[in-house]
Amino acid sequence: MRCIKVNYTNLTEEQRAKLYAELLTEYETLKSKNLKLDMSRGKPGPDQLDLTNDMLTHCLDGDHFSERGVDCRNYGVLDGIFEAKRLFMPMLGLGRYEIIIGGNSSLQLMYDTIARAMLLGVKGGKPWRESPEVKFICPAPGYDRHFAICEAMGIKMLTVPMTDDGPDMDEVERLAASDPNVKGVWCVPMYSNPDGITYSDETVRRFARLQPAAADFRIFWDNAYPVHHISDTPDTLLGILDECKAVGSEDMAYIFGSTSKISFPGGGLAVIGASEQNIEFLKEQMSFQTIGYDKLNQLRHAKFFGDFDGVKKHMELHRAVLKPKFDAVLEVLRRDLTGIGEWREPNGGYFISFNAPNGTAKHIVRLCKDAGVVMTPAGATFPYGRDPLDRNIRIAPTYPPLDELKQAMEIFSVSVRLAALS
Amino acid sequence: MRCIKVNYTNLTEEQRAKLYAELLTEYETLKSKNLKLDMSRGKPGPDQLDLTNDMLTHCLDGDHFSERGVDCRNYGVLDGIFEAKRLFMPMLGLGRYEIIIGGNSSLQLMYDTIARAMLLGVKGGKPWRESPEVKFICPAPGYDRHFAICEAMGIKMLTVPMTDDGPDMDEVERLAASDPNVKGVWCVPMYSNPDGITYSDETVRRFARLQPAAADFRIFWDNAYPVHHISDTPDTLLGILDECKAVGSEDMAYIFGSTSKISFPGGGLAVIGASEQNIEFLKEQMSFQTIGYDKLNQLRHAKFFGDFDGVKKHMELHRAVLKPKFDAVLEVLRRDLTGIGEWREPNGGYFISFNAPNGTAKHIVRLCKDAGVVMTPAGATFPYGRDPLDRNIRIAPTYPPLDELKQAMEIFSVSVRLAALS
Repeated sequence: MRCIKVNYTNLTEEQRAKLYAELLTEYETLKSKNLKLDMSRGKPGPDQLDLTNDMLTHCLDGDHFSERGVDCRNYGVLDGIFEAKRLFMPMLGLGRYEIIIGGNSSLQLMYDTIARAMLLGVKGGKPWRESPEVKFICPAPGYDRHFAICEAMGIKMLTVPMTDDGPDMDEVERLAASDPNVKGVWCVPMYSNPDGITYSDETVRRFARLQPAAADFRIFWDNAYPVHHISDTPDTLLGILDECKAVGSEDMAYIFGSTSKISFPGGGLAVIGASEQNIEFLKEQMSFQTIGYDKLNQLRHAKFFGDFDGVKKHMELHRAVLKPKFDAVLEVLRRDLTGIGEWREPNGGYFISFNAPNGTAKHIVRLCKDAGVVMTPAGATFPYGRDPLDRNIRIAPTYPPLDELKQAMEIFSVSVRLAALS
Repeated sequence: MRCIKVNYTNLTEEQRAKLYAELLTEYETLKSKNLKLDMSRGKPGPDQLDLTNDMLTHCLDGDHFSERGVDCRNYGVLDGIFEAKRLFMPMLGLGRYEIIIGGNSSLQLMYDTIARAMLLGVKGGKPWRESPEVKFICPAPGYDRHFAICEAMGIKMLTVPMTDDGPDMDEVERLAASDPNVKGVWCVPMYSNPDGITYSDETVRRFARLQPAAADFRIFWDNAYPVHHISDTPDTLLGILDECKAVGSEDMAYIFGSTSKISFPGGGLAVIGASEQNIEFLKEQMSFQTIGYDKLNQLRHAKFFGDFDGVKKHMELHRAVLKPKFDAVLEVLRRDLTGIGEWREPNGGYFISFNAPNGTAKHIVRLCKDAGVVMTPAGATFPYGRDPLDRNIRIAPTYPPLDELKQAMEIFSVSVRLAALS
């Protein structure tokens, strides 16, 4: 990953005024096109979804038995069929007894895991709700839906800054050790949302070696983009569960993943991984909630992909669609915003994280909106929606068609420059 | 529904001893066959699942757009696509804004609804967990998984007896009004699990007119078998939401349903219904948990069934499979157990509820098990698994093939008679 750090060059008052007037004219021209473009969510485009359409035709052809003879139409097998587990085991570094295949949403598995921890407790612990206050460590910028779960549950969020190697581990270690009310930490360890940062080996090892004050502390390791490369030189990530096992902390990590951005966001598979003991405990708790998730969809996925190699091959097709979109965004940023904002060029994932001049992010997003381009709300990448420097904007290039994306980026570029000069 | 009440006839000591010896011989003969039969769960048989197999072949054929142009492959539409709602609206007496289509499990919707009520509260209320003690009214015999949710959450269960018209409403009204810690009541209003009782119009109206002490009290109306008839003279049930609206209590009822026993238990659709205001509130709460349930499966169901008439036609096929199984059970009960136990002959649903002589249910289930027939554990139909009279046994005739079911019923019959004579 290249990290580009730049500063706006100094201009005279006159130069600024002239530039501003030119940009305003450009902005008004773009605005008059009455475009309706959306760069707000990490949502695959229809061209990506088409790649998996065969799963909706002859994938099952009436078949409904798993390799081991389970009738996938009927009740049962809470943890999922083996051939579905096999797709995820190498993807997330999990063994066959270290995984539960869920429904179509890893967000739901995360929410449910926290809801059960609050109400019932994690393995060996009391319900979190019995603590005077429950707190989570939240590296930021981060994923707004993680923060929203905390906010909905009344969990206090402790912001930790991101570095090029992942979260500031000095801070993470200090906060985890400082207070038994600190019960967890959110991580998107590979191609992080929104920065596209992959945690260094050292960072992963420091997570495995955390010494939290709370015995019932959990790492929520949301490995959403493990095979979502867009570069010839993809990042690599150490397996957190392996690292935890090496130091005897394997009960500390919950690992989440899904095929939402591999097959279908609306009809994919989600998984939770953990130590065998944690999985046994989670299954026991989950057995009150459901008799089992949709095994027919598990079978559909297993038949479509075959194995993990099939998944990796499929992701090359996604990459072919996404690479030009990321390139188009980066091209505009490089061309127009060098010296004005800073950004990273990620090797994968779904986002480009843009830092505008301090105090301008809200203004930029509003300018974009007025000209017909919906961006993720400024501040959304921080706990409580509050970016202390009001500078971070998450660019999601995947959903719009390439030509619309290019138009949207022109509006974004002018908006940033206008705001920077205001 | 016919309700058969009988008493064991008086026998001399000698007659009893002779009969017991004969039955023991019969039992040992059956036991020596080393059968492995399961009548424990309300699980459709493979012959029923075959009825829906076309959903696994050409049902979608690559199509993925809803009638209103939603791309069902992608994220979004938390409450589900309209054509899926349309299958359930007449089934459960709900309007289009009074329904959310969930995942594959109504149990999960119930569990999640209670978990959110505990953690966050229902509309207009505080989190239930802030009450000194949360209590639920539990008509019994009832559904073991309802009671298990309460037990898992630490909700105290208040048992209310069942009558031929549904729960003893004097008791339900008294308990609901007596204590603001009483937050809900479980109901299976049609072809109840396990008794097969359908609530009378009067019972439904009394539920709608409940005056609970708690403003945040909710009726959990698990309408699991609304179209699951096995008789030419099916029961009918009043719509609870309509009755509630008539008296202004429409926020009191949550209605649950599913296609688990219409399409596939492992890959069906579940729904929650409620007043429009409740649905808006639930959607707001659920938006932190998921971006949306599996719309492709919703589309699959809508295309397979077409409309509610299609569902009703499909249920006639189920009935043709199930009627002979219920008949086979009832035939053995009538032939062998008249005068020994009592039972109802339901017009639909999934169970026959058998009351053995007091104090013999556990013994009977053990005798069955020793002879290779797994029954639902004695007591499972009561809160905390404790049947105060140790007499109720739930017979689930749907899963075994007809010939196996007949063998299992012979073992059940001998076991009941042995236990009754012990």
